[in-house]
Amino acid sequence: MADPRFFDRAGPFSLGALAALSGARLSRPHDGGRLFSDVAPLETAGPNDVAFLDNSKYIDAFAQSLAGAAFVDEKWAARAPPGMALLLSAQPYKAYARAAQAFYPDPSIPARRAPSAEIDPEAVVPADCDIGPFVVIGPRARVGQRCLIGAGTVIGAGVELGDDCQIGPQVTLSHCLIGARVVLHAGVRIGQAGFGFAPDAAGPVKVPQLGRVIIGDDVDIGANTTIDRGSGHDTVIGPGTMIDNLVQIGHNVVLGRGCVLAGQVGVSGSTRLGDFVMAGGQAGFAGHLRIGAGARIGAKAGLMRDVPPGETVLGSPAVPIGQFMRQTAVVQRLAKKKDER
Amino acid sequence: MADPRFFDRAGPFSLGALAALSGARLSRPHDGGRLFSDVAPLETAGPNDVAFLDNSKYIDAFAQSLAGAAFVDEKWAARAPPGMALLLSAQPYKAYARAAQAFYPDPSIPARRAPSAEIDPEAVVPADCDIGPFVVIGPRARVGQRCLIGAGTVIGAGVELGDDCQIGPQVTLSHCLIGARVVLHAGVRIGQAGFGFAPDAAGPVKVPQLGRVIIGDDVDIGANTTIDRGSGHDTVIGPGTMIDNLVQIGHNVVLGRGCVLAGQVGVSGSTRLGDFVMAGGQAGFAGHLRIGAGARIGAKAGLMRDVPPGETVLGSPAVPIGQFMRQTAVVQRLAKKKDER
Amino acid sequence: MADPRFFDRAGPFSLGALAALSGARLSRPHDGGRLFSDVAPLETAGPNDVAFLDNSKYIDAFAQSLAGAAFVDEKWAARAPPGMALLLSAQPYKAYARAAQAFYPDPSIPARRAPSAEIDPEAVVPADCDIGPFVVIGPRARVGQRCLIGAGTVIGAGVELGDDCQIGPQVTLSHCLIGARVVLHAGVRIGQAGFGFAPDAAGPVKVPQLGRVIIGDDVDIGANTTIDRGSGHDTVIGPGTMIDNLVQIGHNVVLGRGCVLAGQVGVSGSTRLGDFVMAGGQAGFAGHLRIGAGARIGAKAGLMRDVPPGETVLGSPAVPIGQFMRQTAVVQRLAKKKDER
Repeated sequence: MADPRFFDRAGPFSLGALAALSGARLSRPHDGGRLFSDVAPLETAGPNDVAFLDNSKYIDAFAQSLAGAAFVDEKWAARAPPGMALLLSAQPYKAYARAAQAFYPDPSIPARRAPSAEIDPEAVVPADCDIGPFVVIGPRARVGQRCLIGAGTVIGAGVELGDDCQIGPQVTLSHCLIGARVVLHAGVRIGQAGFGFAPDAAGPVKVPQLGRVIIGDDVDIGANTTIDRGSGHDTVIGPGTMIDNLVQIGHNVVLGRGCVLAGQVGVSGSTRLGDFVMAGGQAGFAGHLRIGAGARIGAKAGLMRDVPPGETVLGSPAVPIGQFMRQTAVVQRLAKKKDER
Repeated sequence: MADPRFFDRAGPFSLGALAALSGARLSRPHDGGRLFSDVAPLETAGPNDVAFLDNSKYIDAFAQSLAGAAFVDEKWAARAPPGMALLLSAQPYKAYARAAQAFYPDPSIPARRAPSAEIDPEAVVPADCDIGPFVVIGPRARVGQRCLIGAGTVIGAGVELGDDCQIGPQVTLSHCLIGARVVLHAGVRIGQAGFGFAPDAAGPVKVPQLGRVIIGDDVDIGANTTIDRGSGHDTVIGPGTMIDNLVQIGHNVVLGRGCVLAGQVGVSGSTRLGDFVMAGGQAGFAGHLRIGAGARIGAKAGLMRDVPPGETVLGSPAVPIGQFMRQTAVVQRLAKKKDER
Repeated sequence: MADPRFFDRAGPFSLGALAALSGARLSRPHDGGRLFSDVAPLETAGPNDVAFLDNSKYIDAFAQSLAGAAFVDEKWAARAPPGMALLLSAQPYKAYARAAQAFYPDPSIPARRAPSAEIDPEAVVPADCDIGPFVVIGPRARVGQRCLIGAGTVIGAGVELGDDCQIGPQVTLSHCLIGARVVLHAGVRIGQAGFGFAPDAAGPVKVPQLGRVIIGDDVDIGANTTIDRGSGHDTVIGPGTMIDNLVQIGHNVVLGRGCVLAGQVGVSGSTRLGDFVMAGGQAGFAGHLRIGAGARIGAKAGLMRDVPPGETVLGSPAVPIGQFMRQTAVVQRLAKKKDER
């Protein structure tokens, strides 16, 4: 079970209720009345816990699990240990997520304002927000309803946040407009001047960075990620986009709706990603590229050229996945031949 | 136009004045008296705005722009839409930068000291500085004239800053001496102990990190970048060097004058870069290397060996650009052959 | 000598005492009574300083050094300049570390509590700790004896730290249990929710992140590094593990004892590293991998598959070092041939 020092649990729930709220189907409908008190991983779950199997790497753990019930795809149901109640779903991870949300609902935001917070008299901060210690909110900033602002966070002049945002501790925001239900983890830096200068014999000439950062609704941004403001155009993060930790987003970058960027990805200035682009960890994008909607960018890929919609690319310089596989295979074959001689 | 919530604009300026301050030449001298009220990107500029073209990717946007005037290289002048006044320059981006600086001058630093700042009585902080809320300045630290110190920044004992520095919020400085006109963006970490230990069967033995970080005049360092202090020698960042976000600089590294390091670059301990070295995003340098002056390091390059002055290298392990091109071509050719069989 | 603005020096010590505490052997036992006042690098050391040689790249500096004494492997002793006293050791860097620790002992932690720190009445913070300005410690958090907590650090509800921890400024800790003698540098982020969501047509469904971060004794974590809490299992960092700056550790990752991760390494969710794994800078690990004990992962390597214990791998996708060398050689040979035609 989750450590009660850190998590408050709801429940118990009947298996029938869990099936209903998660969209899963009970393999044995007569199990519907059994009560379950928690979710847990396959390896540590007990008879009152609900687990899940979503990755074939863990079929053995599933087959040996003591979990009382588990979310699982029908194709793996036969591997279940005897007595385990099955919640069948074509998307067991999503179904599990719904159940876990029921056991561990987001805590409600208390209306609270730390006396040490320094809020400019010209800022608008609703009374139903939770403003942590040592928060700084500048003139004309506007915070939405029911926002959580973590300790030490600095919100610059004129910044706007939508309703129900959760801003972690020690975040810095400037020159940005942020949508509703946005989650920013600790140490996120948004809106600082981008890397803009023109070379000159007497030293680089700085180019004023006159744009903003516009962040859509339901965006989630990981710890210590940095997003520079635009230089003229805005830097834009589309609604529903998920960005992991330590990601770098340069000035004027536009990310579409529903993009997913894993940890340590870097996107250079003025590159545009269409909707639903996915990029694996440590992938890097050169500047001024166009990446089509639905493109999939492999971990560590180095993008030097535009990518058409829907294409999967790998490698550095990145090439379509088929070509990457052939290149890797031919090099490995030649290296082997060399070895045999 | 730049969002007036975030930017204060000067002007208007006559085209003649803009040409004079930027070193550009008017294609039609009789345009010199026309007044312009702002700078803007090609795509959004109107008849009272000045735009620029600096990258051939945007020639179509230039040809269709409604901008009243634009900085442009003479070779692209023929593509201008009718009626656009042209500010001709061999370096249109630099010329634009000068004009943008005129419209959006750096705000002057107000003499201000947040009552919540904790400044050691033994620290020296001139009255003309702007010291933000919750700033901590330790004993014997010395801050220069007209410095801006952002909210929550921590300046350790003995640290020195030159005049006219702009230090963002939540920066931490220790064991360092910093020049004049240095810009440090939010979350920069300078002077912490480097990654120094000697292996031992009983666990690693930590090596005291006894050096400093020395940062020259006019250096600009991006958000969440980390620079460790030296272990015996100092870590040195040469004057005029520009460092982007999320860059890692190990102990004893020496960067020359006017280097440019793009986002997420990593430089391992004791490596030395000569003057004016440029490194693309996510490039990585092994330790104890010598990189010659003027070398150009491609994005994502992995440097395992010294690089002579002026050389351009790419790939991982990095090789001279000609060799990299041949390697890439031969692998692509072999992969294609394999495909055809 | 180390800058006295930043470092307090002990000593002098006799060469005999330095030999004894470092386990080195004097090449000329009659030097044992000579007093030395400091440690210093080969290039800047004078007659009263002790230097070291640990890397053959610096043999010339050794041969020309003015250091009065140096730690050195016996095999390089013949290259010493005349008059230099030699402290012979098979591990000269470790021996030097012991001597440097003697000259520059860790300062003792003063019992001090900044009046501006906000410590929850339900938190346990011993009086012998040094709690910096603007620190926030939440309800039911427990801090060990003699801990240093840097300015602005935020310790969340229920977090526990062992004795003698040194926590830098502006660190954020939540949902974690931390051992004794742990060092966390500035800007470290531990315990935030990991990157967990299930895809869905209506937008990603967030998966509650119900685990913790467990950090063993004697762990050292570099500036701005991020470690997400587990999603169900815990994220675990084994005792004695050293992590450099700007490293990303995903949810459910397990690092064994004594691992070493250089700067900007990224480890994706649920991957497990055995004891004493070493990873070079910017290496990246895909999720759900098993990396055997003692494996060595090259800088910039991209791990897509499990690695057996003790293996050394390089490249992206990573392969065993022998294969990597053959692959690199064959590509270089073919590129050369192409060039010759």
